[in-house]
Amino acid sequence: MTALGPEARLGDFEASLDVGLKRSNRNAKWSKHGPDALPAWVAEHDFRPPPAVTGAMQATIDRGDFGYHDMEEDVGAAFARWSAERYGWSPDPGFVHTCVDVLQGVTAAITALAAPGEGVILTPPIYHIFLQICPTARRPQLEWLMRHDREAGWTLDPDDLEALVKREPGARVLLWCHPHNPTGWVPGVEVLQRVVELAHAYDFYVVSDEIHADLVYRDSSSPFVPLLSIPGAAERVVTVTSPAKTFALSGLRCAVMAYADRGLRRRVRQAHPPLLLGHAARTGIDATIAAWTHGAAWTDGLVAYLGDRRDQLAKRLAAETPAARFHRPDSTFLAWLDASDCRLGDAPATRLLEQGAVAVSEGSEFGTNGRGHVRLNFGTSAAVLDEILDRLTPCLRP
Amino acid sequence: MTALGPEARLGDFEASLDVGLKRSNRNAKWSKHGPDALPAWVAEHDFRPPPAVTGAMQATIDRGDFGYHDMEEDVGAAFARWSAERYGWSPDPGFVHTCVDVLQGVTAAITALAAPGEGVILTPPIYHIFLQICPTARRPQLEWLMRHDREAGWTLDPDDLEALVKREPGARVLLWCHPHNPTGWVPGVEVLQRVVELAHAYDFYVVSDEIHADLVYRDSSSPFVPLLSIPGAAERVVTVTSPAKTFALSGLRCAVMAYADRGLRRRVRQAHPPLLLGHAARTGIDATIAAWTHGAAWTDGLVAYLGDRRDQLAKRLAAETPAARFHRPDSTFLAWLDASDCRLGDAPATRLLEQGAVAVSEGSEFGTNGRGHVRLNFGTSAAVLDEILDRLTPCLRP
Repeated sequence: MTALGPEARLGDFEASLDVGLKRSNRNAKWSKHGPDALPAWVAEHDFRPPPAVTGAMQATIDRGDFGYHDMEEDVGAAFARWSAERYGWSPDPGFVHTCVDVLQGVTAAITALAAPGEGVILTPPIYHIFLQICPTARRPQLEWLMRHDREAGWTLDPDDLEALVKREPGARVLLWCHPHNPTGWVPGVEVLQRVVELAHAYDFYVVSDEIHADLVYRDSSSPFVPLLSIPGAAERVVTVTSPAKTFALSGLRCAVMAYADRGLRRRVRQAHPPLLLGHAARTGIDATIAAWTHGAAWTDGLVAYLGDRRDQLAKRLAAETPAARFHRPDSTFLAWLDASDCRLGDAPATRLLEQGAVAVSEGSEFGTNGRGHVRLNFGTSAAVLDEILDRLTPCLRP
Repeated sequence: MTALGPEARLGDFEASLDVGLKRSNRNAKWSKHGPDALPAWVAEHDFRPPPAVTGAMQATIDRGDFGYHDMEEDVGAAFARWSAERYGWSPDPGFVHTCVDVLQGVTAAITALAAPGEGVILTPPIYHIFLQICPTARRPQLEWLMRHDREAGWTLDPDDLEALVKREPGARVLLWCHPHNPTGWVPGVEVLQRVVELAHAYDFYVVSDEIHADLVYRDSSSPFVPLLSIPGAAERVVTVTSPAKTFALSGLRCAVMAYADRGLRRRVRQAHPPLLLGHAARTGIDATIAAWTHGAAWTDGLVAYLGDRRDQLAKRLAAETPAARFHRPDSTFLAWLDASDCRLGDAPATRLLEQGAVAVSEGSEFGTNGRGHVRLNFGTSAAVLDEILDRLTPCLRP
């Protein structure tokens, strides 16, 4: 078994991926599509968290400390430090509350702030699981569509948002995916300011999923700016995040909801019976505190490594499959590929799994303007990514 | 550090409790009331789970397997086996679904089955956290009061339930605490049959919290009978349980909701946006599967050990403090003490913490008929229990 020990060089991500071990784990990414397929679907990278994260969970096991606990303040303090050091924004730790996972926090905030019948704005093509919220929560789903430009890639234009909320005065919540999944778009500060201004002017709230915040590349046209750090955001913004994406901890179940306004916090927290939401899990809390306390240098190494994978992908796609159009994302380990000129039909991901034995995510699942696209997860080793591309490129020709 | 290794004798619970370690853990039970108090409050025993449970979590850490997973079927199969072997009831594993914790499952089922304005029946004195559900879920709370008899102890009379639901046709859910916390009452099968009959006759549902099921003593007047095993229960009963109480795993966050009827299952599961409820955590799932697969002999040893503690408590209370009235519970490691003749005032737990440096739970928090009582957790070693009693008995005199 290969593992990143305490002595591992930072950035030794290549060595930390043991494909045989992955396949024998209970990991959905590596098992769902069978032993012959290579996985490039669900948004999880393949690397082990740093030793401090594993060590924190190990301590809980060694100490037999599995009972009731109260560690919310520790999580809040860890998040506040992490955010201050990396993004220059210092939330009040007392206004940071744990929840089970980001999707729970997002759904709780949306259903707290939009009454049944009030609209929720999504930004398609968008993280496909977000599209489950409005139908099951019985809120009308509205769309602020991304624009696509051959040069600039995928972006959102706040003028489109203003037109939408003028037209739909019942729109009450914008679900903001920041940075954006699946396109990797990182909005500049002027976009964020405009969103906050519009929220005040047109009486809507913003629920900001910032789970990909750490994964912005050094050459991004914009750095990551927490939405709650924008002046005026406090009364209108709930931020939900966790270290699960950066550190590949999605099974462990700990996330946070951050506020900067007492009234907004009260409103969200009183909307549901607290017991209905359950509680973050102990090892998730352990891992979260450790990640946000000791994970900075490791994260820097991860982002550099993932940036190299992004460039590896871009280089090979440009050279071998120009028919598959692709904008290098400014963030995330996800590539949003336009395969509509590759004669793969309406379900290119299904075809790529059949023909290439690579599992990518079907673009049509990401809503409007997703058809003909696939989302490819490049959060893996250089060797695995090369094998993924060896399999895919013959299928991606015009 | 003392730990139950694989070679530990079953029943070697005495040796597995290291008070110094407990105090230095993040354990709420041992830390909330400070280093000088002995804890006998929250319903958590002090013993480490068996090696198979810890080992299952260790394997996940060793393998770095922290990502997305899909293990619901394994949990359902483990519960079905456990239930069949111990209670002769074989639920369909496909009708067993994970949730985060028992309180979440209970709250989800109640709010699914009782519309706002429809009544929820509780059985005071009752597990105090249950009393938070109706106020926060905006459902009227109704009371089927326990009866108290000097000989028989605390019981519920189904005739009282019938009178209640005749009087209150809007009563839609009975929250059944089975076995009963704080009294330890284990209802006989004829009571369970009558509850199911009344549910049909008066159109209400039963949400059965069976988290204490494993902790019924050998000399109990009734064995534990799962409510869903009663003929006719399927259309009316949702059972919620977890191994958290038997194995002291409350921080790990995995529980199950079990059904025996497709329509009832659909109704409960469609009542809330699925994402609002989050997901059970990986190490909680690991521990749950291992506990229900490998924990039988250990549980037998635990119940025998806890039965000895119950008898230790009964013997000393009878001999030293007859003013503190007490019925030996048929189940749970909780003693429901009537301290109303001990001149401790309206808040005996507060006084016992001040005067005796023992933290017990305040009876008045358990609702109607709780005043003057305290709940004492005897789920600890013989030595710690003796020290608890050394401190308490001087305070429990008339």
